Amino acid sequence: MEVIKVSAKSRFTSVAGAITGVMREVGRAEVQAIGAGAVNQAVKAVAIARNYLQQDGIDAICIPHFAEVCIDNQERTSIKLLVEKR
Amino acid sequence: MEVIKVSAKSRFTSVAGAITGVMREVGRAEVQAIGAGAVNQAVKAVAIARNYLQQDGIDAICIPHFAEVCIDNQERTSIKLLVEKR
Repeated sequence: MEVIKVSAKSRFTSVAGAITGVMREVGRAEVQAIGAGAVNQAVKAVAIARNYLQQDGIDAICIPHFAEVCIDNQERTSIKLLVEKR
Repeated sequence: MEVIKVSAKSRFTSVAGAITGVMREVGRAEVQAIGAGAVNQAVKAVAIARNYLQQDGIDAICIPHFAEVCIDNQERTSIKLLVEKR
């Protein structure tokens, strides 16, 4: 599954569209955010995607967890939001 | 249901403890955050609470949504994280 990477500068409506597309296709989506600004955009995107998916009769839920990721040879702690059908 | 209010200065481990306690007692918890720093702490708290609750055999999921709240006579947009059993 491809990871949807979100930054503090990401437009949350665009991220919501990406989550919705992946959910419709695969039934689950993984969103990765590093830092408070990115996590905020990611959560807002999930809230919007949930509304979109409800119109398709999909009850989407979110499971947040910590994940270590390696960026430019540096280990960073990311928040991953796993979006799934309830 | 009492709302667990989270600020950017909240310790996420303490918030996780509060979520875990409410989940054990009531079976669902509502977490409110305004602003990126607060949302970040809230999401981290849910991730930790989920780990605690898994040890009790509870599969906790999270549903983020927007909610208008009134603070000091000003309308603010908050993010609410509804934590429920799957």
